[in-house]
Amino acid sequence: MAHIKVPDLPGIRGLMAFRPETAKVLNELTEVLLRSENSLSRGERELIATYVSSLNDCFFCQNAHGGIAQHYLQCDMDFIDSVKRDFQSTEISDKMKTLLSIAAAVQKGGKNVTPEQVEKAKGLGATDIEIHDTVLIAAAFCMFSRYVDGLGTTAPSDRQFYINRGKVRAEEGYVGFDLYK
Amino acid sequence: MAHIKVPDLPGIRGLMAFRPETAKVLNELTEVLLRSENSLSRGERELIATYVSSLNDCFFCQNAHGGIAQHYLQCDMDFIDSVKRDFQSTEISDKMKTLLSIAAAVQKGGKNVTPEQVEKAKGLGATDIEIHDTVLIAAAFCMFSRYVDGLGTTAPSDRQFYINRGKVRAEEGYVGFDLYK
Repeated sequence: MAHIKVPDLPGIRGLMAFRPETAKVLNELTEVLLRSENSLSRGERELIATYVSSLNDCFFCQNAHGGIAQHYLQCDMDFIDSVKRDFQSTEISDKMKTLLSIAAAVQKGGKNVTPEQVEKAKGLGATDIEIHDTVLIAAAFCMFSRYVDGLGTTAPSDRQFYINRGKVRAEEGYVGFDLYK
Repeated sequence: MAHIKVPDLPGIRGLMAFRPETAKVLNELTEVLLRSENSLSRGERELIATYVSSLNDCFFCQNAHGGIAQHYLQCDMDFIDSVKRDFQSTEISDKMKTLLSIAAAVQKGGKNVTPEQVEKAKGLGATDIEIHDTVLIAAAFCMFSRYVDGLGTTAPSDRQFYINRGKVRAEEGYVGFDLYK
């Protein structure tokens, strides 16, 4: 049970139904970060969000966004899990590995990002916008994880729930969807 | 010098000028959280933002919002500093002390918030909306601090700069202001 009285919906949804004023801007932020025009694909951005959420140990965030990443990347959840466990040993690009290492540094605290990490990313072709967005996506999911867990929300443990939802969210986007559907 | 090439503006402003698409939604989020209609005063909400930013060791965020808090609360910066150093020994209300303790737990990670903290806040008159907003403000400033420091921005060290700015920001709000002024 959540720490405050909110509608009985999974994870962040109950909080969004409770407080539509903040839900609106949070969803707009997510839309801009994860779905708007970008040289990083939607799948890559969802993967950054998923990875940071797993570092934050937020069950809802890592599974909700893992389900969406899996849909965009057309992979299975085992691949998503392998990225969370040890992305260096996966077959993602060297550029993505460096961006995930920057995201991991942000998760610990902004000052952990080093000029060397950023230079390495640039050397592998990462643009300033891509580095900016990686840092902001990582920072934003440090917010979302704290929001979801800080208010003690609950969420389904069945991972198939998130796989099914991932497809729907990818199709509908983050803005204007029905929280109760 | 920031990790990426951004306009030479203090702290988050350079990032906002670099990426107006995300600046717009981030400023709208801040406006809703810190300035919209609420039973927590604007000063109290800025104080939560300042305190969490100081726990994040983000110089720009804690001084920018400390300057705004100081303006709303009509206190001096010594008072803001005393809250950052040891809020329990200050003359803020018991309810605010409990909300700041919840904010500190969120800063460490969402799961650190305990039912006992929340019950104590409720017992001291905190509403569910106030508890929700405290958690979300704290979570949001875990994002903002990581964003500002994760991209290696710089900011003026003169604290008077932030006191002067605090008044302007309190008057203008967070939406639609001129980043270059």
